[in-house]
Amino acid sequence: MNNQELKIGVVGVGAIGRTHIERIQNKLQGAVVTACADVNVDFGKSVAEKYGCKFYANGEEMIASDDVDAVIVTTIDPFHEQYVMAAIKAGKYVFCEKPLAPEAEACKRIVEAEIAGGKQLVQVGFMRRYDPGYRQLKEAIQNRTYGEPLLLHCAHRNPSVDESYTTPMAVENSMVHEIDVLRWLLNEDYATAEVVFAKNTRRTHKDLMDPQVMILTTKSGVRIDVEAFVNTGHCYDIKCEVCCEDAILNLPEPANIQVCANAQRGHAIHKDWSTRFVEAYNTEVQEWINASKEGRVDGPTAWDGYVCQVTAAAASKARDTQTVVKIEMDEMPAFYQK
Amino acid sequence: MNNQELKIGVVGVGAIGRTHIERIQNKLQGAVVTACADVNVDFGKSVAEKYGCKFYANGEEMIASDDVDAVIVTTIDPFHEQYVMAAIKAGKYVFCEKPLAPEAEACKRIVEAEIAGGKQLVQVGFMRRYDPGYRQLKEAIQNRTYGEPLLLHCAHRNPSVDESYTTPMAVENSMVHEIDVLRWLLNEDYATAEVVFAKNTRRTHKDLMDPQVMILTTKSGVRIDVEAFVNTGHCYDIKCEVCCEDAILNLPEPANIQVCANAQRGHAIHKDWSTRFVEAYNTEVQEWINASKEGRVDGPTAWDGYVCQVTAAAASKARDTQTVVKIEMDEMPAFYQK
Amino acid sequence: MNNQELKIGVVGVGAIGRTHIERIQNKLQGAVVTACADVNVDFGKSVAEKYGCKFYANGEEMIASDDVDAVIVTTIDPFHEQYVMAAIKAGKYVFCEKPLAPEAEACKRIVEAEIAGGKQLVQVGFMRRYDPGYRQLKEAIQNRTYGEPLLLHCAHRNPSVDESYTTPMAVENSMVHEIDVLRWLLNEDYATAEVVFAKNTRRTHKDLMDPQVMILTTKSGVRIDVEAFVNTGHCYDIKCEVCCEDAILNLPEPANIQVCANAQRGHAIHKDWSTRFVEAYNTEVQEWINASKEGRVDGPTAWDGYVCQVTAAAASKARDTQTVVKIEMDEMPAFYQK
Amino acid sequence: MNNQELKIGVVGVGAIGRTHIERIQNKLQGAVVTACADVNVDFGKSVAEKYGCKFYANGEEMIASDDVDAVIVTTIDPFHEQYVMAAIKAGKYVFCEKPLAPEAEACKRIVEAEIAGGKQLVQVGFMRRYDPGYRQLKEAIQNRTYGEPLLLHCAHRNPSVDESYTTPMAVENSMVHEIDVLRWLLNEDYATAEVVFAKNTRRTHKDLMDPQVMILTTKSGVRIDVEAFVNTGHCYDIKCEVCCEDAILNLPEPANIQVCANAQRGHAIHKDWSTRFVEAYNTEVQEWINASKEGRVDGPTAWDGYVCQVTAAAASKARDTQTVVKIEMDEMPAFYQK
Repeated sequence: MNNQELKIGVVGVGAIGRTHIERIQNKLQGAVVTACADVNVDFGKSVAEKYGCKFYANGEEMIASDDVDAVIVTTIDPFHEQYVMAAIKAGKYVFCEKPLAPEAEACKRIVEAEIAGGKQLVQVGFMRRYDPGYRQLKEAIQNRTYGEPLLLHCAHRNPSVDESYTTPMAVENSMVHEIDVLRWLLNEDYATAEVVFAKNTRRTHKDLMDPQVMILTTKSGVRIDVEAFVNTGHCYDIKCEVCCEDAILNLPEPANIQVCANAQRGHAIHKDWSTRFVEAYNTEVQEWINASKEGRVDGPTAWDGYVCQVTAAAASKARDTQTVVKIEMDEMPAFYQK
Repeated sequence: MNNQELKIGVVGVGAIGRTHIERIQNKLQGAVVTACADVNVDFGKSVAEKYGCKFYANGEEMIASDDVDAVIVTTIDPFHEQYVMAAIKAGKYVFCEKPLAPEAEACKRIVEAEIAGGKQLVQVGFMRRYDPGYRQLKEAIQNRTYGEPLLLHCAHRNPSVDESYTTPMAVENSMVHEIDVLRWLLNEDYATAEVVFAKNTRRTHKDLMDPQVMILTTKSGVRIDVEAFVNTGHCYDIKCEVCCEDAILNLPEPANIQVCANAQRGHAIHKDWSTRFVEAYNTEVQEWINASKEGRVDGPTAWDGYVCQVTAAAASKARDTQTVVKIEMDEMPAFYQK
Repeated sequence: MNNQELKIGVVGVGAIGRTHIERIQNKLQGAVVTACADVNVDFGKSVAEKYGCKFYANGEEMIASDDVDAVIVTTIDPFHEQYVMAAIKAGKYVFCEKPLAPEAEACKRIVEAEIAGGKQLVQVGFMRRYDPGYRQLKEAIQNRTYGEPLLLHCAHRNPSVDESYTTPMAVENSMVHEIDVLRWLLNEDYATAEVVFAKNTRRTHKDLMDPQVMILTTKSGVRIDVEAFVNTGHCYDIKCEVCCEDAILNLPEPANIQVCANAQRGHAIHKDWSTRFVEAYNTEVQEWINASKEGRVDGPTAWDGYVCQVTAAAASKARDTQTVVKIEMDEMPAFYQK
Repeated sequence: MNNQELKIGVVGVGAIGRTHIERIQNKLQGAVVTACADVNVDFGKSVAEKYGCKFYANGEEMIASDDVDAVIVTTIDPFHEQYVMAAIKAGKYVFCEKPLAPEAEACKRIVEAEIAGGKQLVQVGFMRRYDPGYRQLKEAIQNRTYGEPLLLHCAHRNPSVDESYTTPMAVENSMVHEIDVLRWLLNEDYATAEVVFAKNTRRTHKDLMDPQVMILTTKSGVRIDVEAFVNTGHCYDIKCEVCCEDAILNLPEPANIQVCANAQRGHAIHKDWSTRFVEAYNTEVQEWINASKEGRVDGPTAWDGYVCQVTAAAASKARDTQTVVKIEMDEMPAFYQK
């Protein structure tokens, strides 16, 4: 084991970037954030000062410098490609928040650059794979403990979203998590996508159809429906029911104390992803630190990031055209085979 | 209150007919089975002898006779029309097991005959409406306690079916229950139907796609998906999740004792509909007896039976053509308005 | 089966008496309340008028009259003995709300009178035995499905009680239900009783220790603890956990719809016994009607009523002396053996 | 933050000692096991070789050496005192598995030595305090979110124990965990102890009364009952129900996937403490490492270890004499006040 702390540089110190800095400086082990970069110089400097790291106005300069061994990219989505590419060029491990890039083509360019570089360096921030509940489901499905999986019913529910969240974001920001995690659970790619609407809740606004249902089928014929309902008004709730040949499996409820009060017996539900998946985020980044120090990528790869964006793009087209869209993509390069 | 016992004649003494006879003779109050009829004379006579009632080889003769005040039709489906018509002609209340008739046209003829007779006499055996759990859901939805219903996820799961159960029966025999009960829950008619397939379980046979998913939309835009999975291998399980604007509601689990044994904590699940819905069946027939004695029909009407068959026919066409089928039918006659 | 309706006379038309009248007139089958009696003549007459039955100022006169075939005693407790005795004298079946009589000696006199009369006529209103959940527990215990029962943990929780509810009533009014139903579940008598206190809730008043814990042991050594907590502020909740050799069993939660709202997922809990045990009350009275018409007593007997009062008296003494009290009583007379 | 790895020496390399070595070498961060000691020289050497650390035949020599910064004591119980004393003498942080020492007097000597040394160094291995569920309960109780706690019902259930587990061990090995964690939950000391028996399971042996119930009261009057049932045959299950003035709270069920199969719907239960509390163990040792590096003790102290043994001794005396025993001990020294 490498006893040196991994020196990490973070590009983009918005909310999610800062939670990763907090996590690494205060909670995780074996790494330290030594530098950060942001286009907003004044704010970036104040963050750097707060967490005791060096500030770079230029992200690519930071990535290239000896101050950092590895990179976390948490800029706004359109800049992901630029900094991931810089990390590949510098030969440094890079953790990029999802999506790898908004356009599938940009993801493809990253994949090609990584292959050209000859070494896997890129991990995409799909944290659901690190949730203990999904890991239990994965184990049962992979071992075929209850036979073949046949049909999945999922839900992704938020208490509320703001006005900037519009119809396409249900696929592109919310259900993209399901696109990744279900493909990982089932260990196969998707064949078709469809997105349909239900009756709108009164809590939504004119540019957001809410709730929506995305329907995916896999190459072997498994059928998946995913509800995205982002203005439930009351809770953050993630459901995943897997109908297998010999059992119906459900993602566990988070373990919260049971409270019997006010003529109700029940459990608290989380109000947002930050508490629901806090453990998954910690495990995700810790495992990335550990793997980076050991010279491996063992999380979601650039290829996974690419496949998600291809699938999301198909789902978006399906939604806009109200048709079933076939999902087409290249074969996975041997480079990504384990 | 009418203290006389209602004299009931049962046409068709197969399994379901005999459970109704048992129920009336031994469990319910205020009625007695005085006569039964069956095309199988020897078997019918033995049933009549067992339950102490008069046997008729001819069902229509029994229906017309003074031995019976009211009629239960539990023959095989194609003969329902004939005996329901006979009861209408005799001016007697008639409880017909679902479906009212296999063909929507036959249902329509019954509706027309009933209207022509000038008095509501027909009730169809959709027992889900009598289940206490569905009644709780109905109350919450009807009162808009949690806002408008928007989206429903349902499942109809059986442990196994025999070789005679083929692909069309998932809609026509199983999900027809959901067709009725969800229309009653939501208090509106359907607009479209679709039926799609998932990966088949190894437990099915060549003439049965299992599981299937039926998708219905209502006139106001509520979207419903219903899974029919009839070879789960392990349990009879009915699920109904209603996503409303202010809450997600679920049909209660049946109240069975919690058992913690063998490294599992859980509850027994029913193995078939006969135990799961025993209370609903008892309530259904008791309420029918009470209403018949008071000169009312307050359960599912002939019109409800007709609408179900129109909807089921559309779903079947949708399944066979793998398209979305628009559901078209006449306006509900004023005769059936309450 | 006897097709005549059973004519019932009700002595004492307070709240509980009227719920039984409502139940019989509107919900149950095979019986009719033909008469009622009450010491409050004006109020009694108004009740009689409302339910269409004859009023008697004198309960014993009503019991003796031809207007009634069977009797329900729902007066205040100290008068139970007098009217049960009158029913025994008249040779009529009598359903007496619990307790059979406040004093064990009075219960003993009833037992002796019933034996002297040579025919079982008395049933005591312990409705828990008719609850479907307890019946499931009873079946599992009786069949030794999970081995011998060893240890029980029970709770009896109310939202609130008024000032008239004082320390002794936790045993005498509340936990007396557990005294009966656990003895029936385990099918054996008690050996010792103890009652201890916990920290008092701020919601109680100076004459009520709340919560309390009653500890019973049975003759074979099973140990039982029962919490009575009558000012929980929020819910009516009955718990019964049975630790057997091969499983831990729990009384089922009542089947209420699951509601996910306000960052909670849970089920409604009842607020009082009248809704929690409504089905048990209906079954209890219906089965009593049926048995009375068939000339049997098959519910809790006068002897059961006597044993409960002996046990409750021992528990009260244990509470007042803060000692463990041995429970002593006669052998059950052969008259009550089934 | 101290970036050096903490060098840990482990005395006693039996099963529990080795799980701590595994944990530190492979899972936790910021520490390394540099040495181990055991009276069994051959086995100890093989362990040292396997985990790449130095072996000492003499534990005290290891503790005194520069090879170790901090000590873990996992010998058999009677030797705990000797090695904890050696660590105090060496001025090194020491994590001692529970019990601190079998005899309260030995714990007292440790407390006195630690105070004499002038610095808190000792932590006792009560891992329940690190379980996320207990931490949720602690937060709710400490904040009086639901008013004062009044009454607790707990259970400690194991699938089976071997013949060496005898009657006293239910208190001394099993329920000692509840003695610690409930005192921490309620933040007050106990006043009395009592231990009673139920009917024995057929699965036990002649030297073990199983199940047992320990009853504790706190100084402020909270009443606690703890069931120890160590031959349930089927599951490892820990329950903690806290009756507060405004709610009934329960320790959450561990979050395991829901499985509906074989006519049961339920969740897997753990089969032993090692999986149930794996996260608590990891957190416990990680937090001890972190605190040791920062020069603090923030887990259960030597004083907590002493109080537990005084309470356990009182409970044992109560069991042996079948009386209620008053728990008497010194005031907590100011040295341990935070």
